Amino acid sequence: MKAIQVVKPGNPPELREVDKPTPGPGQVLLKVSAAGACHSDDFVLNLPEEGFPYPLPMTLGHEGAGVVAEVGTGVTGISEGTSVAVYGAWGCGVCHFCSRGFENYCSRAAELGIAPPGLGNEGAMAEYMIVDSPRHLVPLGDLDPTAAVPLTDAGLTPYHAIKPSLPKLVGGTTAVVIGAGGLGHVGIQLLRHLTPSRVIALDVSEEKLAFAREVGAHEVVLSDADAVANVRKITGAEGATAVFDFVGLQPTLDAAMGMAGTMGDVVIVGIGDGVAAAKVGFFTQPFEVSVRAPYWGARDELIEVLDLARDGVLEVAVEKFSLDDGVEAYRRLAANDLRGRAVVVPD
Amino acid sequence: MKAIQVVKPGNPPELREVDKPTPGPGQVLLKVSAAGACHSDDFVLNLPEEGFPYPLPMTLGHEGAGVVAEVGTGVTGISEGTSVAVYGAWGCGVCHFCSRGFENYCSRAAELGIAPPGLGNEGAMAEYMIVDSPRHLVPLGDLDPTAAVPLTDAGLTPYHAIKPSLPKLVGGTTAVVIGAGGLGHVGIQLLRHLTPSRVIALDVSEEKLAFAREVGAHEVVLSDADAVANVRKITGAEGATAVFDFVGLQPTLDAAMGMAGTMGDVVIVGIGDGVAAAKVGFFTQPFEVSVRAPYWGARDELIEVLDLARDGVLEVAVEKFSLDDGVEAYRRLAANDLRGRAVVVPD
Amino acid sequence: MKAIQVVKPGNPPELREVDKPTPGPGQVLLKVSAAGACHSDDFVLNLPEEGFPYPLPMTLGHEGAGVVAEVGTGVTGISEGTSVAVYGAWGCGVCHFCSRGFENYCSRAAELGIAPPGLGNEGAMAEYMIVDSPRHLVPLGDLDPTAAVPLTDAGLTPYHAIKPSLPKLVGGTTAVVIGAGGLGHVGIQLLRHLTPSRVIALDVSEEKLAFAREVGAHEVVLSDADAVANVRKITGAEGATAVFDFVGLQPTLDAAMGMAGTMGDVVIVGIGDGVAAAKVGFFTQPFEVSVRAPYWGARDELIEVLDLARDGVLEVAVEKFSLDDGVEAYRRLAANDLRGRAVVVPD
Amino acid sequence: MKAIQVVKPGNPPELREVDKPTPGPGQVLLKVSAAGACHSDDFVLNLPEEGFPYPLPMTLGHEGAGVVAEVGTGVTGISEGTSVAVYGAWGCGVCHFCSRGFENYCSRAAELGIAPPGLGNEGAMAEYMIVDSPRHLVPLGDLDPTAAVPLTDAGLTPYHAIKPSLPKLVGGTTAVVIGAGGLGHVGIQLLRHLTPSRVIALDVSEEKLAFAREVGAHEVVLSDADAVANVRKITGAEGATAVFDFVGLQPTLDAAMGMAGTMGDVVIVGIGDGVAAAKVGFFTQPFEVSVRAPYWGARDELIEVLDLARDGVLEVAVEKFSLDDGVEAYRRLAANDLRGRAVVVPD
Repeated sequence: MKAIQVVKPGNPPELREVDKPTPGPGQVLLKVSAAGACHSDDFVLNLPEEGFPYPLPMTLGHEGAGVVAEVGTGVTGISEGTSVAVYGAWGCGVCHFCSRGFENYCSRAAELGIAPPGLGNEGAMAEYMIVDSPRHLVPLGDLDPTAAVPLTDAGLTPYHAIKPSLPKLVGGTTAVVIGAGGLGHVGIQLLRHLTPSRVIALDVSEEKLAFAREVGAHEVVLSDADAVANVRKITGAEGATAVFDFVGLQPTLDAAMGMAGTMGDVVIVGIGDGVAAAKVGFFTQPFEVSVRAPYWGARDELIEVLDLARDGVLEVAVEKFSLDDGVEAYRRLAANDLRGRAVVVPD
Repeated sequence: MKAIQVVKPGNPPELREVDKPTPGPGQVLLKVSAAGACHSDDFVLNLPEEGFPYPLPMTLGHEGAGVVAEVGTGVTGISEGTSVAVYGAWGCGVCHFCSRGFENYCSRAAELGIAPPGLGNEGAMAEYMIVDSPRHLVPLGDLDPTAAVPLTDAGLTPYHAIKPSLPKLVGGTTAVVIGAGGLGHVGIQLLRHLTPSRVIALDVSEEKLAFAREVGAHEVVLSDADAVANVRKITGAEGATAVFDFVGLQPTLDAAMGMAGTMGDVVIVGIGDGVAAAKVGFFTQPFEVSVRAPYWGARDELIEVLDLARDGVLEVAVEKFSLDDGVEAYRRLAANDLRGRAVVVPD
Repeated sequence: MKAIQVVKPGNPPELREVDKPTPGPGQVLLKVSAAGACHSDDFVLNLPEEGFPYPLPMTLGHEGAGVVAEVGTGVTGISEGTSVAVYGAWGCGVCHFCSRGFENYCSRAAELGIAPPGLGNEGAMAEYMIVDSPRHLVPLGDLDPTAAVPLTDAGLTPYHAIKPSLPKLVGGTTAVVIGAGGLGHVGIQLLRHLTPSRVIALDVSEEKLAFAREVGAHEVVLSDADAVANVRKITGAEGATAVFDFVGLQPTLDAAMGMAGTMGDVVIVGIGDGVAAAKVGFFTQPFEVSVRAPYWGARDELIEVLDLARDGVLEVAVEKFSLDDGVEAYRRLAANDLRGRAVVVPD
Repeated sequence: MKAIQVVKPGNPPELREVDKPTPGPGQVLLKVSAAGACHSDDFVLNLPEEGFPYPLPMTLGHEGAGVVAEVGTGVTGISEGTSVAVYGAWGCGVCHFCSRGFENYCSRAAELGIAPPGLGNEGAMAEYMIVDSPRHLVPLGDLDPTAAVPLTDAGLTPYHAIKPSLPKLVGGTTAVVIGAGGLGHVGIQLLRHLTPSRVIALDVSEEKLAFAREVGAHEVVLSDADAVANVRKITGAEGATAVFDFVGLQPTLDAAMGMAGTMGDVVIVGIGDGVAAAKVGFFTQPFEVSVRAPYWGARDELIEVLDLARDGVLEVAVEKFSLDDGVEAYRRLAANDLRGRAVVVPD
């Protein structure tokens, strides 16, 4: 079968012919219906060859959807032909974190050599993929796999970032989204549908701000040196009750801290340059601002995100590619030349 | 191998010779180290033969501990020789409830024919037992299986009942435990170690009240017609912030409602006679008393309960029987002639 | 000044001439801008004369709004001319409940003789009213007092009833509102704006159901003997995650219990006939359904409700009367001959 | 009457003769029974004279207790002769924060010129003090004022810091306290009584570590360059679920971040040098560590803290001084020459 693989770090991915896999006991074989390309794939493709953390070659794709093609021995509760999305943050399923659905924080994954598809295991950018357990599948029902597949990361990650802040986001509060891109524009939609807060979006171009408004932002502010002052003009002295930074660079982190109000939340979602950090001191920001940097999301949260999509609440802008054009999709991703999420659809 | 089975409902259980089972794919075979007998077993043994909900004969025992003897194909992350407790409230592991650890509330268990060991599946009252997934095992480490096995139900059930009430149980509050038996005496210990509340225990005899004091109750009150008045003498007008009824008969439920204070919790843990019910109306009890009837507990909660035991916080009174004496254990259970939990230890 | 008073229980209220009050130390005098009439006023008017709980005569009106006309000595932080709503569930402001804003549950109100306006103190159905503390005032800003005044009870009560259930009302869940009247129709709006749940409304006539749809219900079901079955047709086996019963009669309470799903909430808001009660037993309803009967709301919650109104999220249907026509408003209220909330606006 | 005042910043405080105050409307006059001296007093005494934020001279003391001597007009619900503690974090009592008890975060305090006693208003280091509202008084009942007065800050502050972390501190978790001084040693006691967590205390000397053990720490670790490694030896790879830094200097903040485990909390309580800050980035610490810097505590929390003291759960080491010796108390405080909290007791 065809698969898009990272073969040599630093080089573009390659479309290659590989063996169709067979599900072992407890595993499920999916005929892939859609696979999403993500900025973190690009990050992986550009890691140094020395110390590259994954086996090579490796099929890319941690956002996957498919149709159950075959189940391994011992698999029950899921039938061939079922359309599913893949929960990608695989963990052991047993430890204290996993027992609560937080497989994204599995405490035994490293020890047991467990890794997500496309980030250590063979991923979804292929005609078929293996999912290690039926517990990592969520039935899609009527949902279109192409539209739904980005939700497994670009939907789940902002949802997980936002969910713990919901109790604070009551009437009269403000939520800020910094960066209205792949994840941020889903964050805006989530905030609009899950809270009564006023939503302010920040980005660097008028075009992006127009997009932010389109997906629901009440107010938009250019992300420049005056951003904090401009946001505070809107919020008044109170500041924002929650700021979600989908960029994560030093200027956006500093701005996030500068906008947050007393008892507010600052949530770092964007990876940034890998070294930027928010500074939290006793006198540095309003009292009891809480700062956290979550990663991906929990298993029950993906179920909830797909339910939201089913209700028409979430829509991810998508550009569709065939598997043959998948390498081109990655080229355009790297060139920042995509409107929305690139989704590869094997025929 | 030997197993204690229900053969004919209405009759005592029998010690029988059955085949030693073999683990299928994804399953784990345990050499049983301890199995707890529970009042609900007695309830099952006395169900009418017509419409008996489980296959017959069926090995009893939903509280189990053992040593991993063999793992089926596809099982990883657990090695032979590991001492484990069994999480018994088996669910599908995949649905929204299961994804959060609430396998006790699995929404697909009935549909998929999933049932707990000893309550639909072959249970722990045997030399060996099959556990359907490694996710239903919690390593015991140094914990003595005989002492720990009752925690899988008699520890987990009160823990799950109490946990949602913890945020209300601040300094200056009162928690009431009705019934200081198998589960109630663990409830008292949990309340003492997890909250700063004053703990009042109710039971029907001075002997039971002395036991309640021994395990930590600050105050004890005879469970009679004056119980509500006597508890309110202690709490004042405020009433109790949480009442845990481990009996569940009409008089105890009415008493529980009568003791609860504004915004308090009434938690029905005891099965009672199967028909008793608390009455909740607008003018019936103080404002915003919350009433709930939970069942068993979640997967992560069993991990937490065993961690508490490891810290020496929990101790379940236990009377030990051999497998050959298991039938006698059930006779004494039925006769209410046990001091503590009956645990069967195959040699 | 003019005031609408209960003079003789069992009789209609009367429009009478009374002295304009003067604010004592710590108190605030309001020139009333709007006063809402509530079904509970009617309940009070019809209480037996013997044992009538309030002083007579007493000005009605526990929903009030006004403009600060004069402040007593020691009052700071609020200026004459400010347009405000009155938080009516007055408490001592000091006890543990009051310290968290739950003045509706003040533990010292009875002892200290503290009572809400219109329910023990002179109420808002007059040209002027006394508010005992600036802490019971929420600035209205641009909000129209006539439109906003019902929110102090008909908005605050459903908000307080719904708020604790919000964390359960995630994507894919269902919330049921029984009774789409004065409070229920606000409940529907709140559920639509604060949750992504599907909202089902029940009422007894097609006209009421049409109104429920108008204010946002996704589905409507006639409140008859088939209501439970019809709701379960929509929710499937799962049942409803939260049921808010704004009626509180035995049939609606039984229906509410019959619709709730595992771990769901049943919230009794309607006073019903004063004796109806939901029954909660171990085998009576799905596992861990929680039942509570809250009363009115907290101080911070009124601030949040008015903020929601400011954002255009809440709209209460209102019928306007002059003070001279206030007695007629009560007549029509008693006759159930009002479309929306009756609001009295002194000129 | 006598009062200990800051007269000239940079100089020691002075014992001076001032007028006995008279309570205005809504105010309460206390005959002071005890006043605690705090490190933040020392901080204030050493602020530069230019831009000194408070009126001069100003009586010190934000930890106060007393007996109600006289109430102003309009004060109800509290009688002369009642022994009370003073909640010192005065706010407006009306805004959204204050309505939930968070007067420590009042959004209008600055605008309205509201300030705590001893930090802008005349404080407790005198024979009499004015409290601006009965809402800032908590009855002490039988509690000894000398023993209880430090709880108004040295008890309330750690309680407020710890309370939001309680749901995470389940069985099997670890909580770390950095700095076992005035606040930290109360933090250790609170963690022991409110959680089943293993408590590790860090400090810089063996003597302080012995004290930490005495008040309940399970383990102690010297606060040096190896502290993180030594704590991780105890916690294993998991790390600490909550770290409370009562020091707040750069090395302790860095250590706190280094010890925290996935989804853990880092809470900055100590003021440090005013510029130190924890760094929170995407790759800087384990996933979803939450960092916050709270200030003092809420009104309901002081009620809860005093209830804990009443139950014998909390004990603050105290050294007693007369008002005449109060200046000496401040000298020894500055010299770090106190064992426990300095409490001034006017005779």
